[in-house]
Amino acid sequence: MKIALVIGSTISTIKDEVIRGRKLLIVRDADTAGKPTGEPYIAVDTVSAGTGDLVMVTDGSSARYTNQTTNAPVDAVIVGVIDSLELGGKVSYRKE
Amino acid sequence: MKIALVIGSTISTIKDEVIRGRKLLIVRDADTAGKPTGEPYIAVDTVSAGTGDLVMVTDGSSARYTNQTTNAPVDAVIVGVIDSLELGGKVSYRKE
Amino acid sequence: MKIALVIGSTISTIKDEVIRGRKLLIVRDADTAGKPTGEPYIAVDTVSAGTGDLVMVTDGSSARYTNQTTNAPVDAVIVGVIDSLELGGKVSYRKE
Amino acid sequence: MKIALVIGSTISTIKDEVIRGRKLLIVRDADTAGKPTGEPYIAVDTVSAGTGDLVMVTDGSSARYTNQTTNAPVDAVIVGVIDSLELGGKVSYRKE
Amino acid sequence: MKIALVIGSTISTIKDEVIRGRKLLIVRDADTAGKPTGEPYIAVDTVSAGTGDLVMVTDGSSARYTNQTTNAPVDAVIVGVIDSLELGGKVSYRKE
Repeated sequence: MKIALVIGSTISTIKDEVIRGRKLLIVRDADTAGKPTGEPYIAVDTVSAGTGDLVMVTDGSSARYTNQTTNAPVDAVIVGVIDSLELGGKVSYRKE
Repeated sequence: MKIALVIGSTISTIKDEVIRGRKLLIVRDADTAGKPTGEPYIAVDTVSAGTGDLVMVTDGSSARYTNQTTNAPVDAVIVGVIDSLELGGKVSYRKE
Repeated sequence: MKIALVIGSTISTIKDEVIRGRKLLIVRDADTAGKPTGEPYIAVDTVSAGTGDLVMVTDGSSARYTNQTTNAPVDAVIVGVIDSLELGGKVSYRKE
Repeated sequence: MKIALVIGSTISTIKDEVIRGRKLLIVRDADTAGKPTGEPYIAVDTVSAGTGDLVMVTDGSSARYTNQTTNAPVDAVIVGVIDSLELGGKVSYRKE
Repeated sequence: MKIALVIGSTISTIKDEVIRGRKLLIVRDADTAGKPTGEPYIAVDTVSAGTGDLVMVTDGSSARYTNQTTNAPVDAVIVGVIDSLELGGKVSYRKE
């Protein structure tokens, strides 16, 4: 799963009912300090994440395997809010 | 899902009946201002998008999970037209 | 789906019966003028494409969803021959 | 499958019960000497791996095909601890 | 499918029974002359390939669709040994 930072949100005109009922957040992949390093993309929120949160994103077909995205045409879903990351015994990131 | 800009369309000779009956648009991944940054590829339109629209593209196996692409050999589908993108409280893109 | 140029073919020793019975073409991803820009890879032909043709390639799991590749261990399949590409009202590529 | 080095671990707030019950490790893709070369990402541990281990990571939909991740929204799973890698008759990596 | 060169093998401690019973080879993606160009990764051998062979690798979910990898947590499988590659009427690679 990717380490990603939530940077914003989107409003879109969508036909699919599953996607339409969910919060769509803009995220960027991030490093272990929580600093964004990748391009922005859209992920379905399933854990009440917000801007500034470091999250765990599952992509590909597995994005359809949460209770809230079953059989939906989605390819990226936020499955967790990261509380802390630890590298070699040291905390590299901790949620404020 | 990807943020992508519709830049054109394609006419192709296709055997698969599902794909043949659908509009095939050329898109490029874009940034949060709507500026294209990626290489062109082809996505099936399911939301009546047009050239110049910023759209949300689902790729991979999940592209088969719209009503209009079920079990079709497609790997990219437009699932929404983006109305606005908001970053940190500011609108970075708004559909004209 | 990718825009790709057919550049050659391969002869391989293959156990899987579905793949063995099909033409295996070498393709490179291309831009909207038909110029190759990516690395070569192998795609199963399902539309009688030939060297020099610009084609539409579906990859990933959806490559198994043509009549000719059902449940086969393939990850790239040619689903169409591109007749023309149009960008902003202008034809950027037309099959000769 | 990827050759990857385990560099740390993560604590996250997760709703999905399958993921919540498992160890989530931070890994980076590595070369044949075990030196990390890629960006960090999160993989579910199914083999009791630890920091410093060189491991084999399966990603994409196949990450759901271990006994411990069936139908879970995960896209990367550690399926083996690498004992040794051999290139052209020479050992390039051996677990200490 | 990818054109890849077999460069070595790996010994790993693996729980999954399907993977454990198979030969795990280290490969690198290659060009049409058989020269390796990509990073090393691990693929399951299903065709008795060996070091120095140029092979055809299927990745992603389709790697589970050979007789020998059904429902196994694998994301890359060797499905063929390449005998020759032909580009524009000229042989660019022939197995010795």
